[in-house]
Amino acid sequence: MNIKPRLQLALDHTRLDAALQTVALLHPHVDIIEAGTILCISAGIQAVHTLRERCPAHLLVADLKVADAGGTLAEQAFSHGADWMTVICAAPLPTMASALEIAERYQGEIQIELFGRWTLEDARAWRNLGIKQAIYHRGRDAQASGQTWGQQDLDTMKALSDLGIELSITGGITPADLPLFKDIAVTAFIAGRALAEAPDPVSAARQFHTAIAAIWGN
Amino acid sequence: MNIKPRLQLALDHTRLDAALQTVALLHPHVDIIEAGTILCISAGIQAVHTLRERCPAHLLVADLKVADAGGTLAEQAFSHGADWMTVICAAPLPTMASALEIAERYQGEIQIELFGRWTLEDARAWRNLGIKQAIYHRGRDAQASGQTWGQQDLDTMKALSDLGIELSITGGITPADLPLFKDIAVTAFIAGRALAEAPDPVSAARQFHTAIAAIWGN
Repeated sequence: MNIKPRLQLALDHTRLDAALQTVALLHPHVDIIEAGTILCISAGIQAVHTLRERCPAHLLVADLKVADAGGTLAEQAFSHGADWMTVICAAPLPTMASALEIAERYQGEIQIELFGRWTLEDARAWRNLGIKQAIYHRGRDAQASGQTWGQQDLDTMKALSDLGIELSITGGITPADLPLFKDIAVTAFIAGRALAEAPDPVSAARQFHTAIAAIWGN
Repeated sequence: MNIKPRLQLALDHTRLDAALQTVALLHPHVDIIEAGTILCISAGIQAVHTLRERCPAHLLVADLKVADAGGTLAEQAFSHGADWMTVICAAPLPTMASALEIAERYQGEIQIELFGRWTLEDARAWRNLGIKQAIYHRGRDAQASGQTWGQQDLDTMKALSDLGIELSITGGITPADLPLFKDIAVTAFIAGRALAEAPDPVSAARQFHTAIAAIWGN
Protein backbone atom coordinates (compact mmCIF):
# COMPACT_ATOMS: atom_id res chain seq x y z
CA MET A 1 0.00 0.00 0.00
CA ASN A 2 1.48 3.34 -1.04
CA ILE A 3 -1.36 5.52 0.12
CA LYS A 4 -1.20 6.77 3.67
CA PRO A 5 -4.71 7.38 4.97
CA ARG A 6 -5.49 10.86 6.18
CA LEU A 7 -7.43 11.87 9.25
CA GLN A 8 -10.73 13.64 8.64
CA LEU A 9 -12.50 15.60 11.35
CA ALA A 10 -16.28 15.41 10.96
CA LEU A 11 -18.06 18.36 12.53
CA ASP A 12 -21.55 17.21 13.43
CA HIS A 13 -22.48 19.97 15.80
CA THR A 14 -25.92 21.53 15.80
CA ARG A 15 -24.35 24.95 16.43
CA LEU A 16 -21.79 26.56 14.14
CA ASP A 17 -20.06 28.33 17.04
CA ALA A 18 -19.45 25.00 18.78
CA ALA A 19 -18.11 23.51 15.54
CA LEU A 20 -15.76 26.47 15.14
CA GLN A 21 -14.42 25.96 18.67
CA THR A 22 -13.68 22.33 17.86
CA VAL A 23 -12.00 23.22 14.60
CA ALA A 24 -9.92 25.96 16.21
CA LEU A 25 -8.54 23.38 18.61
CA LEU A 26 -8.10 20.50 16.18
CA HIS A 27 -7.32 21.89 12.73
CA PRO A 28 -3.53 21.67 13.15
CA HIS A 29 -3.95 17.98 13.98
CA VAL A 30 -6.17 16.77 11.15
CA ASP A 31 -5.76 16.59 7.37
CA ILE A 32 -9.33 17.02 6.19
CA ILE A 33 -12.22 18.98 7.68
CA GLU A 34 -15.80 17.93 7.11
CA ALA A 35 -18.90 20.06 7.44
CA GLY A 36 -21.14 17.20 8.56
CA THR A 37 -24.76 16.77 7.53
CA ILE A 38 -26.01 17.79 10.96
CA LEU A 39 -23.96 20.99 10.85
CA CYS A 40 -25.00 21.81 7.27
CA ILE A 41 -28.68 21.29 8.09
CA SER A 42 -28.38 23.26 11.31
CA ALA A 43 -26.41 26.24 10.04
CA GLY A 44 -26.90 25.97 6.29
CA ILE A 45 -24.22 26.27 3.63
CA GLN A 46 -22.80 29.19 5.62
CA ALA A 47 -21.09 26.48 7.66
CA VAL A 48 -19.01 25.43 4.64
CA HIS A 49 -18.25 29.06 3.84
CA THR A 50 -17.08 29.82 7.38
CA LEU A 51 -14.96 26.67 7.63
CA ARG A 52 -13.27 27.56 4.34
CA GLU A 53 -12.42 31.01 5.76
CA ARG A 54 -11.07 29.55 9.00
CA CYS A 55 -9.10 26.74 7.34
CA PRO A 56 -7.96 28.01 3.94
CA ALA A 57 -5.35 25.28 3.42
CA HIS A 58 -7.28 22.18 4.49
CA LEU A 59 -9.21 19.85 2.26
CA LEU A 60 -12.86 20.63 3.06
CA VAL A 61 -15.75 18.19 2.61
CA ALA A 62 -19.42 19.17 2.42
CA ASP A 63 -21.25 16.06 3.64
CA LEU A 64 -24.61 16.88 2.07
CA LYS A 65 -25.55 13.28 1.14
CA VAL A 66 -27.20 14.67 -1.99
CA ALA A 67 -30.08 12.56 -3.34
CA ASP A 68 -31.46 14.89 -5.99
CA ALA A 69 -30.76 18.29 -7.54
CA GLY A 70 -27.12 17.34 -7.86
CA GLY A 71 -26.10 20.39 -9.88
CA THR A 72 -27.77 22.97 -7.63
CA LEU A 73 -26.43 21.47 -4.42
CA ALA A 74 -22.95 20.99 -5.88
CA GLU A 75 -22.94 24.64 -6.92
CA GLN A 76 -23.84 25.55 -3.33
CA ALA A 77 -21.11 23.35 -1.87
CA PHE A 78 -18.25 24.14 -4.24
CA SER A 79 -18.95 27.85 -4.64
CA HIS A 80 -18.76 28.12 -0.85
CA GLY A 81 -15.36 26.48 -0.75
CA ALA A 82 -15.81 22.72 -0.51
CA ASP A 83 -13.24 20.48 -2.21
CA TRP A 84 -15.31 17.34 -1.98
CA MET A 85 -19.08 16.80 -1.69
CA THR A 86 -20.95 13.63 -0.79
CA VAL A 87 -23.80 12.15 -2.82
CA ILE A 88 -25.83 9.27 -1.41
CA CYS A 89 -25.62 5.98 -3.28
CA ALA A 90 -29.43 5.92 -3.66
CA ALA A 91 -29.27 9.00 -5.89
CA PRO A 92 -30.08 8.43 -9.56
CA LEU A 93 -27.11 8.40 -11.95
CA PRO A 94 -28.21 11.69 -13.57
CA THR A 95 -27.94 13.32 -10.12
CA MET A 96 -24.41 12.00 -9.73
CA ALA A 97 -23.55 13.15 -13.25
CA SER A 98 -24.80 16.69 -12.69
CA ALA A 99 -23.03 16.91 -9.32
CA LEU A 100 -19.82 15.66 -10.93
CA GLU A 101 -20.04 18.18 -13.75
CA ILE A 102 -20.12 21.07 -11.27
CA ALA A 103 -17.44 19.45 -9.09
CA GLU A 104 -15.06 19.24 -12.03
CA ARG A 105 -15.69 22.88 -12.91
CA TYR A 106 -14.32 23.71 -9.43
CA GLN A 107 -11.63 20.99 -9.59
CA GLY A 108 -13.53 19.28 -6.79
CA GLU A 109 -14.54 15.67 -6.30
CA ILE A 110 -17.69 13.72 -5.55
CA GLN A 111 -17.76 11.02 -2.89
CA ILE A 112 -20.52 8.41 -2.94
CA GLU A 113 -21.84 7.77 0.53
CA LEU A 114 -22.73 4.08 0.86
CA PHE A 115 -25.94 3.48 2.76
CA GLY A 116 -28.63 0.84 2.40
CA ARG A 117 -28.95 -1.17 -0.77
CA TRP A 118 -26.40 -0.86 -3.57
CA THR A 119 -24.53 -3.33 -5.74
CA LEU A 120 -21.05 -3.63 -7.25
CA GLU A 121 -22.76 -3.06 -10.59
CA ASP A 122 -23.91 0.32 -9.25
CA ALA A 123 -20.35 1.00 -8.14
CA ARG A 124 -19.08 0.19 -11.61
CA ALA A 125 -21.59 2.67 -13.06
CA TRP A 126 -20.39 5.38 -10.64
CA ARG A 127 -16.78 4.65 -11.62
CA ASN A 128 -17.70 4.82 -15.30
CA LEU A 129 -19.19 8.27 -14.71
CA GLY A 130 -15.80 9.35 -13.42
CA ILE A 131 -16.38 9.10 -9.69
CA LYS A 132 -13.30 7.93 -7.80
CA GLN A 133 -14.26 8.09 -4.16
CA ALA A 134 -16.78 6.52 -1.81
CA ILE A 135 -17.42 6.59 1.89
CA TYR A 136 -17.90 3.29 3.63
CA HIS A 137 -20.16 3.97 6.48
CA ARG A 138 -21.28 2.33 9.62
CA GLY A 139 -24.12 4.72 10.44
CA ARG A 140 -24.19 6.25 13.91
CA ASP A 141 -27.59 4.72 14.56
CA ALA A 142 -26.45 1.32 13.28
CA GLN A 143 -23.38 1.72 15.43
CA ALA A 144 -25.47 2.63 18.48
CA SER A 145 -27.55 -0.47 17.85
CA GLY A 146 -24.41 -2.59 18.09
CA GLN A 147 -23.32 -3.31 14.50
CA THR A 148 -19.57 -3.95 14.28
CA TRP A 149 -17.08 -4.14 11.42
CA GLY A 150 -17.00 -7.62 9.94
CA GLN A 151 -15.32 -9.67 7.24
CA GLN A 152 -18.18 -8.82 4.90
CA ASP A 153 -17.41 -5.11 5.28
CA LEU A 154 -13.77 -5.77 4.52
CA ASP A 155 -14.55 -7.92 1.47
CA THR A 156 -16.86 -5.24 0.11
CA MET A 157 -14.23 -2.56 0.68
CA LYS A 158 -11.66 -4.68 -1.16
CA ALA A 159 -14.04 -5.14 -4.10
CA LEU A 160 -14.58 -1.38 -4.29
CA SER A 161 -10.83 -0.77 -4.12
CA ASP A 162 -10.38 -3.21 -6.98
CA LEU A 163 -12.84 -1.17 -9.08
CA GLY A 164 -10.60 1.86 -8.58
CA ILE A 165 -12.77 3.49 -5.95
CA GLU A 166 -10.85 4.98 -3.05
CA LEU A 167 -12.57 4.68 0.29
CA SER A 168 -12.95 6.86 3.28
CA ILE A 169 -14.12 4.95 6.30
CA THR A 170 -16.33 6.13 9.11
CA GLY A 171 -18.58 5.02 11.91
CA GLY A 172 -17.28 5.05 15.46
CA ILE A 173 -13.70 4.31 14.38
CA THR A 174 -11.01 4.30 17.05
CA PRO A 175 -7.23 3.95 16.61
CA ALA A 176 -7.54 0.36 17.81
CA ASP A 177 -9.76 -0.45 14.80
CA LEU A 178 -7.26 0.71 12.16
CA PRO A 179 -5.28 -2.55 11.69
CA LEU A 180 -8.53 -4.08 10.36
CA PHE A 181 -8.18 -1.92 7.26
CA LYS A 182 -4.50 -2.50 6.48
CA ASP A 183 -5.20 -4.14 3.10
CA ILE A 184 -7.64 -1.48 1.89
CA ALA A 185 -6.70 1.68 -0.07
CA VAL A 186 -8.04 4.12 2.49
CA THR A 187 -8.22 7.82 1.59
CA ALA A 188 -9.22 8.91 5.06
CA PHE A 189 -10.48 7.75 8.39
CA ILE A 190 -13.33 9.99 9.42
CA ALA A 191 -13.79 10.66 13.10
CA GLY A 192 -16.28 12.99 14.70
CA ARG A 193 -17.18 12.46 18.31
CA ALA A 194 -14.09 10.24 18.82
CA LEU A 195 -12.07 13.44 18.38
CA ALA A 196 -14.37 16.31 19.36
CA GLU A 197 -15.70 14.63 22.49
CA ALA A 198 -12.47 12.98 23.63
CA PRO A 199 -11.23 14.05 27.08
CA ASP A 200 -8.15 15.37 25.27
CA PRO A 201 -9.05 15.91 21.58
CA VAL A 202 -5.50 16.79 20.46
CA SER A 203 -4.12 13.66 22.09
CA ALA A 204 -6.90 11.62 20.45
CA ALA A 205 -5.90 13.00 17.04
CA ARG A 206 -2.26 12.14 17.75
CA GLN A 207 -3.24 8.58 18.63
CA PHE A 208 -4.93 8.25 15.24
CA HIS A 209 -1.81 9.56 13.45
CA THR A 210 0.43 7.24 15.47
CA ALA A 211 -1.73 4.23 14.59
CA ILE A 212 -1.82 5.26 10.91
CA ALA A 213 1.98 5.65 10.83
CA ALA A 214 2.46 2.29 12.56
CA ILE A 215 0.46 0.53 9.85
CA TRP A 216 1.05 2.57 6.70
CA GLY A 217 4.45 4.11 7.45
CA ASN A 218 5.47 7.73 7.83
CA MET B 1 -61.30 6.62 -2.62
CA ASN B 2 -62.27 8.75 0.34
CA ILE B 3 -59.05 10.67 0.66
CA LYS B 4 -58.80 13.88 -1.26
CA PRO B 5 -55.19 14.62 -2.09
CA ARG B 6 -53.76 17.88 -0.85
CA LEU B 7 -51.53 20.29 -2.72
CA GLN B 8 -48.02 20.70 -1.31
CA LEU B 9 -45.80 23.61 -2.26
CA ALA B 10 -42.13 22.60 -2.30
CA LEU B 11 -39.82 25.55 -1.74
CA ASP B 12 -36.52 24.67 -3.37
CA HIS B 13 -35.00 28.12 -3.52
CA THR B 14 -31.35 28.73 -2.72
CA ARG B 15 -32.31 31.98 -0.94
CA LEU B 16 -34.71 32.15 1.99
CA ASP B 17 -35.95 35.61 0.99
CA ALA B 18 -36.98 34.30 -2.43
CA ALA B 19 -38.73 31.33 -0.80
CA LEU B 20 -40.60 33.69 1.51
CA GLN B 21 -41.79 35.77 -1.44
CA THR B 22 -43.16 32.63 -3.08
CA VAL B 23 -44.85 31.50 0.10
CA ALA B 24 -46.36 34.93 0.73
CA LEU B 25 -48.01 34.72 -2.68
CA LEU B 26 -49.05 31.08 -2.62
CA HIS B 27 -49.77 30.08 0.98
CA PRO B 28 -53.51 30.80 0.75
CA HIS B 29 -53.69 28.48 -2.26
CA VAL B 30 -51.87 25.39 -0.98
CA ASP B 31 -52.51 22.92 1.84
CA ILE B 32 -48.98 21.93 2.81
CA ILE B 33 -45.73 23.88 2.73
CA GLU B 34 -42.41 22.13 2.28
CA ALA B 35 -39.00 23.46 3.19
CA GLY B 36 -37.19 21.64 0.38
CA THR B 37 -33.76 20.08 0.69
CA ILE B 38 -32.14 22.82 -1.38
CA LEU B 39 -33.65 25.50 0.86
CA CYS B 40 -32.72 23.68 4.08
CA ILE B 41 -29.12 23.22 2.90
CA SER B 42 -28.90 26.80 1.68
CA ALA B 43 -30.43 28.56 4.67
CA GLY B 44 -30.23 25.89 7.36
CA ILE B 45 -32.98 24.86 9.75
CA GLN B 46 -33.78 28.55 10.16
CA ALA B 47 -35.78 28.08 6.96
CA VAL B 48 -38.17 25.71 8.75
CA HIS B 49 -38.38 28.08 11.73
CA THR B 50 -39.21 31.09 9.55
CA LEU B 51 -41.78 29.21 7.48
CA ARG B 52 -43.51 28.08 10.68
CA GLU B 53 -43.69 31.71 11.82
CA ARG B 54 -45.07 32.88 8.50
CA CYS B 55 -47.56 30.03 8.10
CA PRO B 56 -48.68 29.02 11.59
CA ALA B 57 -51.72 27.06 10.41
CA HIS B 58 -50.26 25.07 7.52
CA LEU B 59 -48.87 21.59 7.63
CA LEU B 60 -45.11 22.09 7.29
CA VAL B 61 -42.68 19.50 5.91
CA ALA B 62 -38.92 19.52 6.47
CA ASP B 63 -37.55 17.66 3.44
CA LEU B 64 -34.21 16.72 4.96
CA LYS B 65 -33.92 13.25 3.34
CA VAL B 66 -32.26 12.04 6.54
CA ALA B 67 -29.84 9.12 6.07
CA ASP B 68 -28.25 8.98 9.51
CA ALA B 69 -28.47 10.67 12.90
CA GLY B 70 -32.25 10.34 12.78
CA GLY B 71 -32.86 11.54 16.31
CA THR B 72 -30.68 14.64 16.12
CA LEU B 73 -32.05 15.76 12.77
CA ALA B 74 -35.63 15.04 13.80
CA GLU B 75 -35.10 17.14 16.92
CA GLN B 76 -33.87 19.97 14.68
CA ALA B 77 -36.83 19.67 12.33
CA PHE B 78 -39.65 19.23 14.82
CA SER B 79 -38.38 21.66 17.45
CA HIS B 80 -38.30 24.30 14.70
CA GLY B 81 -41.91 23.68 13.79
CA ALA B 82 -42.07 20.91 11.19
CA ASP B 83 -45.06 18.57 11.24
CA TRP B 84 -43.52 16.00 8.94
CA MET B 85 -39.89 15.17 8.15
CA THR B 86 -38.50 13.05 5.33
CA VAL B 87 -36.05 10.16 5.78
CA ILE B 88 -34.43 8.56 2.75
CA CYS B 89 -35.28 4.92 2.10
CA ALA B 90 -31.57 4.02 2.15
CA ALA B 91 -31.36 4.96 5.83
CA PRO B 92 -30.88 2.06 8.23
CA LEU B 93 -33.94 0.99 10.23
CA PRO B 94 -32.40 2.29 13.50
CA THR B 95 -32.21 5.75 11.90
CA MET B 96 -35.87 5.55 10.98
CA ALA B 97 -36.75 4.34 14.45
CA SER B 98 -34.91 7.15 16.20
CA ALA B 99 -36.42 9.75 13.87
CA LEU B 100 -39.87 8.31 14.50
CA GLU B 101 -39.42 8.39 18.25
CA ILE B 102 -38.72 12.13 18.16
CA ALA B 103 -41.49 12.73 15.62
CA GLU B 104 -44.05 11.09 17.89
CA ARG B 105 -42.88 13.17 20.83
CA TYR B 106 -43.89 16.24 18.78
CA GLN B 107 -46.98 14.52 17.32
CA GLY B 108 -45.24 14.70 13.99
CA GLU B 109 -44.81 12.12 11.25
CA ILE B 110 -41.98 10.61 9.24
CA GLN B 111 -42.20 10.25 5.48
CA ILE B 112 -39.90 7.82 3.69
CA GLU B 113 -38.49 9.31 0.53
CA LEU B 114 -38.20 6.59 -2.11
CA PHE B 115 -35.01 6.81 -4.15
CA GLY B 116 -32.83 4.18 -5.72
CA ARG B 117 -33.00 0.59 -4.56
CA TRP B 118 -35.64 -0.54 -2.07
CA THR B 119 -38.02 -3.47 -1.86
CA LEU B 120 -41.57 -4.12 -0.68
CA GLU B 121 -39.98 -6.08 2.15
CA ASP B 122 -38.23 -2.86 3.21
CA ALA B 123 -41.57 -1.06 3.00
CA ARG B 124 -43.15 -3.70 5.23
CA ALA B 125 -40.37 -3.14 7.77
CA TRP B 126 -40.97 0.63 7.69
CA ARG B 127 -44.70 0.06 8.19
CA ASN B 128 -43.98 -2.31 11.09
CA LEU B 129 -41.91 0.42 12.74
CA GLY B 130 -45.00 2.61 12.64
CA ILE B 131 -44.24 4.70 9.56
CA LYS B 132 -47.37 5.51 7.56
CA GLN B 133 -46.18 7.80 4.81
CA ALA B 134 -43.84 7.69 1.86
CA ILE B 135 -42.97 10.00 -1.00
CA TYR B 136 -42.93 8.53 -4.46
CA HIS B 137 -40.42 10.50 -6.36
CA ARG B 138 -39.40 11.06 -9.89
CA GLY B 139 -36.16 12.94 -9.20
CA ARG B 140 -35.64 16.29 -10.90
CA ASP B 141 -32.50 14.99 -12.56
CA ALA B 142 -34.25 11.79 -13.66
CA GLN B 143 -37.09 13.95 -14.91
CA ALA B 144 -34.70 16.24 -16.79
CA SER B 145 -33.17 13.16 -18.39
CA GLY B 146 -36.61 12.22 -19.75
CA GLN B 147 -38.00 9.58 -17.36
CA THR B 148 -41.80 9.56 -17.37
CA TRP B 149 -44.46 8.00 -15.14
CA GLY B 150 -45.20 4.46 -16.20
CA GLN B 151 -47.36 1.47 -15.31
CA GLN B 152 -44.54 0.16 -13.14
CA ASP B 153 -44.67 3.33 -11.04
CA LEU B 154 -48.43 2.94 -10.64
CA ASP B 155 -48.17 -0.76 -9.74
CA THR B 156 -45.53 0.02 -7.11
CA MET B 157 -47.65 2.83 -5.68
CA LYS B 158 -50.62 0.49 -5.47
CA ALA B 159 -48.54 -2.12 -3.65
CA LEU B 160 -47.41 0.51 -1.13
CA SER B 161 -51.00 1.68 -0.65
CA ASP B 162 -52.00 -1.91 0.01
CA LEU B 163 -49.38 -2.08 2.78
CA GLY B 164 -51.06 0.87 4.47
CA ILE B 165 -48.51 3.43 3.35
CA GLU B 166 -49.99 6.70 2.18
CA LEU B 167 -48.16 8.32 -0.68
CA SER B 168 -47.25 11.81 -1.63
CA ILE B 169 -46.22 12.11 -5.25
CA THR B 170 -43.70 14.44 -6.78
CA GLY B 171 -41.50 14.99 -9.79
CA GLY B 172 -42.58 17.48 -12.43
CA ILE B 173 -46.28 16.82 -11.84
CA THR B 174 -48.78 18.93 -13.74
CA PRO B 175 -52.60 19.01 -13.38
CA ALA B 176 -52.81 17.00 -16.61
CA ASP B 177 -50.93 14.11 -14.92
CA LEU B 178 -53.36 13.72 -12.01
CA PRO B 179 -55.85 11.27 -13.59
CA LEU B 180 -52.98 8.76 -13.74
CA PHE B 181 -53.15 8.48 -9.96
CA LYS B 182 -56.90 8.14 -9.51
CA ASP B 183 -56.67 4.64 -7.99
CA ILE B 184 -53.91 5.49 -5.50
CA ALA B 185 -54.43 6.78 -1.94
CA VAL B 186 -52.57 10.04 -2.45
CA THR B 187 -51.85 12.23 0.57
CA ALA B 188 -50.48 15.11 -1.45
CA PHE B 189 -49.25 16.13 -4.83
CA ILE B 190 -46.02 18.02 -4.39
CA ALA B 191 -45.23 20.78 -6.83
CA GLY B 192 -42.31 23.15 -6.72
CA ARG B 193 -41.30 24.92 -9.89
CA ALA B 194 -44.66 24.05 -11.51
CA LEU B 195 -46.16 26.51 -9.02
CA ALA B 196 -43.38 28.91 -8.11
CA GLU B 197 -42.16 29.44 -11.65
CA ALA B 198 -45.55 29.42 -13.38
CA PRO B 199 -46.40 32.63 -15.28
CA ASP B 200 -49.34 32.99 -12.86
CA PRO B 201 -48.58 30.91 -9.73
CA VAL B 202 -51.98 31.44 -8.11
CA SER B 203 -53.75 30.33 -11.25
CA ALA B 204 -51.44 27.30 -11.45
CA ALA B 205 -52.40 26.33 -7.88
CA ARG B 206 -56.09 26.73 -8.75
CA GLN B 207 -55.65 24.43 -11.75
CA PHE B 208 -54.24 21.75 -9.44
CA HIS B 209 -57.19 22.11 -7.05
CA THR B 210 -59.66 22.01 -9.95
CA ALA B 211 -58.08 18.84 -11.30
CA ILE B 212 -58.05 17.25 -7.83
CA ALA B 213 -61.71 18.11 -7.27
CA ALA B 214 -62.65 16.76 -10.71
CA ILE B 215 -61.11 13.38 -9.87
CA TRP B 216 -61.53 12.99 -6.12
CA GLY B 217 -64.60 15.21 -5.52
CA ASN B 218 -65.01 18.32 -3.41
